[in-house]
Amino acid sequence: MQTPTKTSGRHRVVVIGGGFGGVRAVKALEREPVEITLIDRTNHHLFQPLLYQVATGVLSAGQIAPALRGMFRKQKNVRVLLGVVDEIDVEHHTVRMIADETTTIPYDTLIVATGATHSYFGHDEWSQIAPGMKSLDDARRVRSRILGAFEIAEQKTDPTERDAWLTFAVVGAGPTGVELAGQIALLAHRVLRNDYRHIDPSTARVLLLDATAHVLGTYPESLSERAANDLRHLGVEVELSAPVTDIGLGGLTIGSAGDARRIEARTVIWAAGVTASPLAAQLGRSSGAEIDRAGRLHVGPDLTLPGHPEVFVIGDMITIPGVPGTAQPAIQEGKYAAKVIRTRLADKAPPSAFHYLDLGSMAVIGRTRAVASLFGHINVGGFPAFLIWGIVHLANLVGWGNRYEAIARWGWTILARNRRERVISIVSLVSEQTAMNELEQLRAAETRADEEDAQPS
Amino acid sequence: MQTPTKTSGRHRVVVIGGGFGGVRAVKALEREPVEITLIDRTNHHLFQPLLYQVATGVLSAGQIAPALRGMFRKQKNVRVLLGVVDEIDVEHHTVRMIADETTTIPYDTLIVATGATHSYFGHDEWSQIAPGMKSLDDARRVRSRILGAFEIAEQKTDPTERDAWLTFAVVGAGPTGVELAGQIALLAHRVLRNDYRHIDPSTARVLLLDATAHVLGTYPESLSERAANDLRHLGVEVELSAPVTDIGLGGLTIGSAGDARRIEARTVIWAAGVTASPLAAQLGRSSGAEIDRAGRLHVGPDLTLPGHPEVFVIGDMITIPGVPGTAQPAIQEGKYAAKVIRTRLADKAPPSAFHYLDLGSMAVIGRTRAVASLFGHINVGGFPAFLIWGIVHLANLVGWGNRYEAIARWGWTILARNRRERVISIVSLVSEQTAMNELEQLRAAETRADEEDAQPS
Repeated sequence: MQTPTKTSGRHRVVVIGGGFGGVRAVKALEREPVEITLIDRTNHHLFQPLLYQVATGVLSAGQIAPALRGMFRKQKNVRVLLGVVDEIDVEHHTVRMIADETTTIPYDTLIVATGATHSYFGHDEWSQIAPGMKSLDDARRVRSRILGAFEIAEQKTDPTERDAWLTFAVVGAGPTGVELAGQIALLAHRVLRNDYRHIDPSTARVLLLDATAHVLGTYPESLSERAANDLRHLGVEVELSAPVTDIGLGGLTIGSAGDARRIEARTVIWAAGVTASPLAAQLGRSSGAEIDRAGRLHVGPDLTLPGHPEVFVIGDMITIPGVPGTAQPAIQEGKYAAKVIRTRLADKAPPSAFHYLDLGSMAVIGRTRAVASLFGHINVGGFPAFLIWGIVHLANLVGWGNRYEAIARWGWTILARNRRERVISIVSLVSEQTAMNELEQLRAAETRADEEDAQPS
Repeated sequence: MQTPTKTSGRHRVVVIGGGFGGVRAVKALEREPVEITLIDRTNHHLFQPLLYQVATGVLSAGQIAPALRGMFRKQKNVRVLLGVVDEIDVEHHTVRMIADETTTIPYDTLIVATGATHSYFGHDEWSQIAPGMKSLDDARRVRSRILGAFEIAEQKTDPTERDAWLTFAVVGAGPTGVELAGQIALLAHRVLRNDYRHIDPSTARVLLLDATAHVLGTYPESLSERAANDLRHLGVEVELSAPVTDIGLGGLTIGSAGDARRIEARTVIWAAGVTASPLAAQLGRSSGAEIDRAGRLHVGPDLTLPGHPEVFVIGDMITIPGVPGTAQPAIQEGKYAAKVIRTRLADKAPPSAFHYLDLGSMAVIGRTRAVASLFGHINVGGFPAFLIWGIVHLANLVGWGNRYEAIARWGWTILARNRRERVISIVSLVSEQTAMNELEQLRAAETRADEEDAQPS
């Protein structure tokens, strides 16, 4: 069935994905005579750079995820639909959306901005044990794991078991891994320090592992080193050139063959690989556009699909040399796509090819420190970098109901060392444990079967 | 296995349940030479009177649920354990707790305070369709249902379908039902009014149904009438003497036989019946104590189990004539149990029998109105009652990290008409829908089988 479409005869723009790219594109078309349909699988825009704060109990879900409808309440040329797009028909200019029913939605121009999800480099079974950090559901799962580990440790009498439950491994030292490891260290070594009777949370080990030789590998080397030092100062064990080769129920393995080393860590969090949303592969097949190893599309200089000037692909779904997979490029690409659409509608000359303006990259370390690389050549660390981080992030809150309230609220919550959002229950722990146990049994059975196969008969 | 117990030789008090009763008992034993173990299936104390605000997106989970550990950080004679107690051995003075492992915990004195859960009056299959309102998980489910219904309605072209998705039925007009219905009406008629393009949320119907002739049946009649009027003023359709006899996938049935009336409501929320935690029945069996229709125990005048002066049962698990199932009695009972324990430890004369001091009952209607019955004979309504409600609730925040922050935060959030905590995703909707569909198919198959059985052969 077809959803009701206005019969205004206006140019129909369909935007898939309400992340940084999609939302900016919609905003930038505010005054245009177009009819926009924004489709997302959730009802909110996720401010992903702060997701690690939900995972560590600092902020609530609602604080980093305003409702998309609220953001576009006053922009009357947009309708927002909750649904999943599973098919794009570039020939017939329609997308198929699944919600309560399945709907076909026609477009004149399409903007695909469904981002990326985590990739376990061919080891999808690791996802059960080592949750990733992409959605609010992920963040809640990670929070439940981290806080649950302290609870279980409190009840253990065997010191080896207890230590394993008090060991947290974050795999991947990009911005998410760095920020998460820093927060877990703060949680263990400061916030929870006096909360337990049998364990001393300040003895918890927090490991940050990366296969490469640097934390924040895309940053200038001086900042990478500064970040690694700041993390160590917070009590994070930074292990570099440490490729994870296996993740199992009780912990993980670093390196292979003779070099392999096992780490007993009951909590493992995945912040290593990402892969583009499956729609990228689909668009690649139907347009012949190339796809890179991370599943990202090569698009034209105006961010459109080869042979389909009416289809824009932006954000983490595409690959442009030298452009990182962060919020800034997605925002700039969303604005650019809107600009191209505007010039077309006005029959003006199209803008020149998309050019990424590197405003900088930032990562917070612990409570009041950060590293920031600005405009590609200014490097700042420590508290000044944290201040810059705060200003930039708050300035980027698009369509927040009340920015001043947000500033007050965040400032308070972040600086007050409080962890109000710590809600977990035995139910979530038990279901996690059950899923992990089942997986482990399955793997054990497979290993036995493999060994039996390998027996000389 | 046995958890590590201190070997101080001190009197061991085990408290099961970190609700109002349990938490107050623990607090009141702060200066006693006892060794307290507080067991709860979640890691937080739930401020249940505000649960409806989480269900309607006003407050976040963390705002009404401080971590138990945080509350008792400084009370060194308490250890907090996350786990479920499934068995109490009153002969051997032990409880069995299930967490990561199963543990037996010995006690000298036991306080059982695990409260109540919802009862569907023998129709447990309704629970899939009509979620209750007891835990934070329940509240999140209700929120997902309410917000999801507007999303689905927005996509419907058939007006009958659309209207059914815009009809919300709350079953049970006690305080929870009244407060929830008021908030849904506010959400639909004010907060979301301009958020949609195809539907007009202000046309949504919010029904509050009760089998009896009154809302807030335990309140003085003048307040019941005032509350009903205030609700109608907010746009809630209050239907009294309307017993719900069936709840199915599309809606519910009121009355039976010739009188039966069907209401098409895609969202049904259960706020009608409660039944005591299963531990009550277990204690009844092992002590011979009587149990009422709602599964609540009859305990002695000092709140102990017959024949077991060392076992206290408090809060929603017990029945005392004239005492309602709300926070106040649980708090007073928790304090009383602690007092009995104190006098025993000091070898003093025990206090006289437990006497409930009726401080009053209150329910909020909409944004700034309430009804309050104080000390059993003063009745207040409107904004003055709301102010009293605010003061009493804030005064009752035990062990909150920072009460002033809480006041500022709540005041702002409640009065600012904002609904920040609106996060849902298609995943939660789809899984709800799937579960409901499966159930409906099951029921249809059963009906067919019944009809076939009934065919004259």
